[in-house]
Amino acid sequence: MKSKLAIVKIGGNVIEDPQQLSKFLMFFAQMPEYKILVHGGGKLATELAKKLGIETQMVGGRRITDAANLEVITMVYAGLTNKNIVAQLQAKACNAIGLSGADGDTIQAHKRRVGEIDYGFAGDVDGINASTIGILLDNDFTPVFCAMTHDGLGQLLNTNADTIAAEIAIGMGKTFETTLYYCFEKKGVLSDVDDNDSVIEKINTKTYQTLLEERKIVDGMLPKLENCFHALQHDVERVCIGDLSMVGPNAQRFTTITL
Amino acid sequence: MKSKLAIVKIGGNVIEDPQQLSKFLMFFAQMPEYKILVHGGGKLATELAKKLGIETQMVGGRRITDAANLEVITMVYAGLTNKNIVAQLQAKACNAIGLSGADGDTIQAHKRRVGEIDYGFAGDVDGINASTIGILLDNDFTPVFCAMTHDGLGQLLNTNADTIAAEIAIGMGKTFETTLYYCFEKKGVLSDVDDNDSVIEKINTKTYQTLLEERKIVDGMLPKLENCFHALQHDVERVCIGDLSMVGPNAQRFTTITL
Repeated sequence: MKSKLAIVKIGGNVIEDPQQLSKFLMFFAQMPEYKILVHGGGKLATELAKKLGIETQMVGGRRITDAANLEVITMVYAGLTNKNIVAQLQAKACNAIGLSGADGDTIQAHKRRVGEIDYGFAGDVDGINASTIGILLDNDFTPVFCAMTHDGLGQLLNTNADTIAAEIAIGMGKTFETTLYYCFEKKGVLSDVDDNDSVIEKINTKTYQTLLEERKIVDGMLPKLENCFHALQHDVERVCIGDLSMVGPNAQRFTTITL
Repeated sequence: MKSKLAIVKIGGNVIEDPQQLSKFLMFFAQMPEYKILVHGGGKLATELAKKLGIETQMVGGRRITDAANLEVITMVYAGLTNKNIVAQLQAKACNAIGLSGADGDTIQAHKRRVGEIDYGFAGDVDGINASTIGILLDNDFTPVFCAMTHDGLGQLLNTNADTIAAEIAIGMGKTFETTLYYCFEKKGVLSDVDDNDSVIEKINTKTYQTLLEERKIVDGMLPKLENCFHALQHDVERVCIGDLSMVGPNAQRFTTITL
């Protein structure tokens, strides 16, 4: 029987609020299964860039990562945010080890090809090194990934944290029973976007089609759910979407997605 | 028989010069024995602090690490410098993994007690986690440590890189035959400080006494050598001091210190 592995992704809303972060890390530290944390960087990088007089260009919600922005991201994501999370988890008796995709060659990527838009030093993931991550898990480490990868030729790359979490869940799915948790500001997938209590508790391929037909899945949630089904079709057991209480001992309602 | 382990410390003079760094990393990647890299941060942190309008106070050559400076150091040492070194080593087929002392709880420290001077978030090392570092080495990882530790209570601490290198060498000395390499700008311990070719190739306890009596060891070299003998008296096999060519295939003259 496969061992259980939780891959938990947190975003800016948790990282930027010290109290929320501390609460989340307490929950995360107490999860009994094998686990991996993936974090984005949030607004801190944008704020630092601003202080340094570095322009941050966004196209369609995506950052254009020029060399100066890559330095800022490396400082904030891999340095400030990652190491503070690691130190806090250690204080909560969780043997965290902070990683970028370059560390241990854990996530291989390539610089996004230049099409209509040149995203600069943005990385598209080619694959993860499941055996190396497995060695860390087997030796009681809890990997904490920041949203950075590398091209194997010495270049660090800025990479979407949702994608990293999904790719790790997919890559580890062959040897572990993996659950992918996306923590965000809402309680789950909502049937009424204006009502945070209208959580749809279970979604599968069939009910997803119905929700689509009823036009209940809109805007930002659509690509998120497409990514979830992509992961489920590639060895991931289940995907859970909800707020940070989802991984706590008294988890309230959240959305669980299966095939 | 114990396996050989090299602990190599590099400072600002190598880190700040991309060509020197690349040359050094090529040498380091090719060292056949088990190995660990320890790096300081150099002037980059001071420059970033300046750009951000954060004052950096130095007392007796030591940085006073207030909260704002600790953030800067975490960004530069653990982020920018560490991850770029890791990515470059990976490109040279060396399976580097970047660490602070918080990662894997590898280096335990405490905040320096406030005496005449309050050094702020400066860490004095209590000990290293030799078994955890050993697990990484046994699994083909090459640890790359930045000059940061933690107190186990969630606080990151700025810690002298020379000290970290010595403590790692001492801690690993029970299970490995350890050699501690201090790379700096000169070719070794010089008998004439103005002549970079006057390298003293071998120093031991006896000849060190003679050098002291002849007043050939002066200024900054004195505490450095005291630290070397401290390490030698605690399970470290030998200490080598020289420039970066010391770890290369055509090593030139450098200083080797033994008991």
